[in-house]
Amino acid sequence: MVIRTHVGVSLDGFLADADGVAAWESLPGYERHSHGIAEVLEHCEAVVMGRATFDRGLSKWAGDWPWRDKDVHVLTSRPLPEGIGARPCPSPAELLRRLQFTGLMGDVHLLGGARAIRAFLDLGAIDRLGVVVLPMLLGKGIPLFADTAQALHLQCQRPHPNGAVELIYTPA
Amino acid sequence: MVIRTHVGVSLDGFLADADGVAAWESLPGYERHSHGIAEVLEHCEAVVMGRATFDRGLSKWAGDWPWRDKDVHVLTSRPLPEGIGARPCPSPAELLRRLQFTGLMGDVHLLGGARAIRAFLDLGAIDRLGVVVLPMLLGKGIPLFADTAQALHLQCQRPHPNGAVELIYTPA
Repeated sequence: MVIRTHVGVSLDGFLADADGVAAWESLPGYERHSHGIAEVLEHCEAVVMGRATFDRGLSKWAGDWPWRDKDVHVLTSRPLPEGIGARPCPSPAELLRRLQFTGLMGDVHLLGGARAIRAFLDLGAIDRLGVVVLPMLLGKGIPLFADTAQALHLQCQRPHPNGAVELIYTPA
Repeated sequence: MVIRTHVGVSLDGFLADADGVAAWESLPGYERHSHGIAEVLEHCEAVVMGRATFDRGLSKWAGDWPWRDKDVHVLTSRPLPEGIGARPCPSPAELLRRLQFTGLMGDVHLLGGARAIRAFLDLGAIDRLGVVVLPMLLGKGIPLFADTAQALHLQCQRPHPNGAVELIYTPA
């Protein structure tokens, strides 16, 4: 089991604007570019997200739930809507243990938001830190990283036609 | 005349640690990697830096002044040591006018630090925003960017053997 992120950030490090709108939604025509997400999802058996990301996504995904064949875990201490098939978990450390003991064959896509990613980073639980650097400065918003120092190895990098650059790191 | 930066930043956006030590000095063996700076300097006729960068560099560069064949401009309102051949200028806007009216044939290397780069960015005066993303999270320090929103075009990108990725943007 490999836990991986694949998250768009502005060159100045924001994953979302101040209203929580994902940085890549500000890129003109972003929906025409997968930025490599399809390859990530292909290998993932489970998805982890924070509560705010889930709540934001719910209305968007309602008609077309993108995680039909995935286990979905949501970091939250509040109950989730029924019928979605997503499982709540109040703590990142507990969720990590759950993932480790579930015997997953595939990978885990740590979708976001920033708080969920930081929590897993601080647990040393991210095996592939995938970041898509978007060609823009947002100036303000929700930073992806905070306070964590970590040496990294660049595993691979790939430019996309719209000027986004995919960078995948492993912890050093 | 093209004004360009070529600055190392950690993946979390810090150009220097909290003590002002440049981010790439934290990279093991960084002095063995030019990260493309030689190509930048080859085309530059002038160098611009902030006062703190100048003062930090002075002792390091004393024995081997790297700007012998360049015009050196320092953003400062205080006098500079004599005999160095560097010219002070109190304001980024004034320095920009000076550069524009000097009739430079070559480029200008906007060396840093963060305040000098931000000031030129806010003036819309950076023609090539070159950033070398270093394979590390610093967790804290001096951020390269602050508050400026700007759409960018990716001009080129190049990975280096040590995992640093050079990204060069033009304003969109």
